[in-house]
Amino acid sequence: MQTVQEGSHVMLRLDDGQDLFAAIGQAARERGIRAAAVVSGIGMIKAADLGYWTGREYEVEHIDTPHELVGLQGSIASLDEGPSIHLHAQLANPHHQVIGGHLLRATVAVVGEVCLETFPGRTFGRPMNESLGLRTLDLDPGPI
Amino acid sequence: MQTVQEGSHVMLRLDDGQDLFAAIGQAARERGIRAAAVVSGIGMIKAADLGYWTGREYEVEHIDTPHELVGLQGSIASLDEGPSIHLHAQLANPHHQVIGGHLLRATVAVVGEVCLETFPGRTFGRPMNESLGLRTLDLDPGPI
Amino acid sequence: MQTVQEGSHVMLRLDDGQDLFAAIGQAARERGIRAAAVVSGIGMIKAADLGYWTGREYEVEHIDTPHELVGLQGSIASLDEGPSIHLHAQLANPHHQVIGGHLLRATVAVVGEVCLETFPGRTFGRPMNESLGLRTLDLDPGPI
Repeated sequence: MQTVQEGSHVMLRLDDGQDLFAAIGQAARERGIRAAAVVSGIGMIKAADLGYWTGREYEVEHIDTPHELVGLQGSIASLDEGPSIHLHAQLANPHHQVIGGHLLRATVAVVGEVCLETFPGRTFGRPMNESLGLRTLDLDPGPI
Repeated sequence: MQTVQEGSHVMLRLDDGQDLFAAIGQAARERGIRAAAVVSGIGMIKAADLGYWTGREYEVEHIDTPHELVGLQGSIASLDEGPSIHLHAQLANPHHQVIGGHLLRATVAVVGEVCLETFPGRTFGRPMNESLGLRTLDLDPGPI
Repeated sequence: MQTVQEGSHVMLRLDDGQDLFAAIGQAARERGIRAAAVVSGIGMIKAADLGYWTGREYEVEHIDTPHELVGLQGSIASLDEGPSIHLHAQLANPHHQVIGGHLLRATVAVVGEVCLETFPGRTFGRPMNESLGLRTLDLDPGPI
């Protein structure tokens, strides 16, 4: 993996076989990123779990064949245990058909190119929202 | 809704039931945004109208079941009557199949996370292009 | 085409009939962009070639009917011969079904709105990776 930063934006070059969440988490830890948007992500993935939120749980599709990563967007918040990364992705199969959803897991194939927009003076939170049953982004969680 | 700004980029946290265009428009008015790109948008929507431009009109699909919002991109210009917001979106159904197009209307479900890149010294316009029959982005409309 | 820059980000307004790669390449040359992410791109295309990398070659689909450009992400590096532009795209047909993949060629229809995040102090490379059989992004290629 390579990472470079210029002002508030950060570019990541991920390598074949890397776990996408672990790689973005490592970049966030190394650069002290506690608040960011994921604004671009392309390349390929060799495995992924895609989720659809039913209101109670994620309906999960396991993907274990290479797909083009045609789009990646999301956010990075900061929890006690480390970066909290929320990603949605679009994946294209050999016939160029696109599936997508909430990304639960992904392994990079060939190469990955990811761009982050950080909010250097900020810490985003992701507290559990009991009424929704999942953690939701809090842009201004106050001192933690 | 929460909004935070750091330098030229702005993050929005939208809430269940909010109108997506009204929320982005409100953030643009409150922060004096007259020129911006929408560079990320994820979460869910509970209703939306997706359009395909035939050259004469939009072929519209009404969506009234929850879909994952897997991608959102676009631009914000400024008209006399307020912010002019142009959005394209990708939506995934429970089977993770993706539909997309020009977004005419959308209501947030669960949560929405949207990132804007603003051009603080600028005002983008969106004048009517009579030959095309629709308003198109003008990056340098001059004094208005 | 119009282009405006504010700090490190650049907005492009492309016009009907323009080649997408030639237009982004021209903007990169004119503004001296040697390292950037493509973070947003919407509008329509009237023709495109979409690729899926099999590990040996691109499985290509030729598209020659107008599609909504619902998402565009990628990177710009700099080679001796000029800008090296890597783009992945999602395209929607009149029924709002989405196809996507590695973009090999595209011609703008109606209008295109593209946003770049540049890394002004940087030059990204795209050297040939012999083991993969294709050029991959190098964020820190050293003096060239």
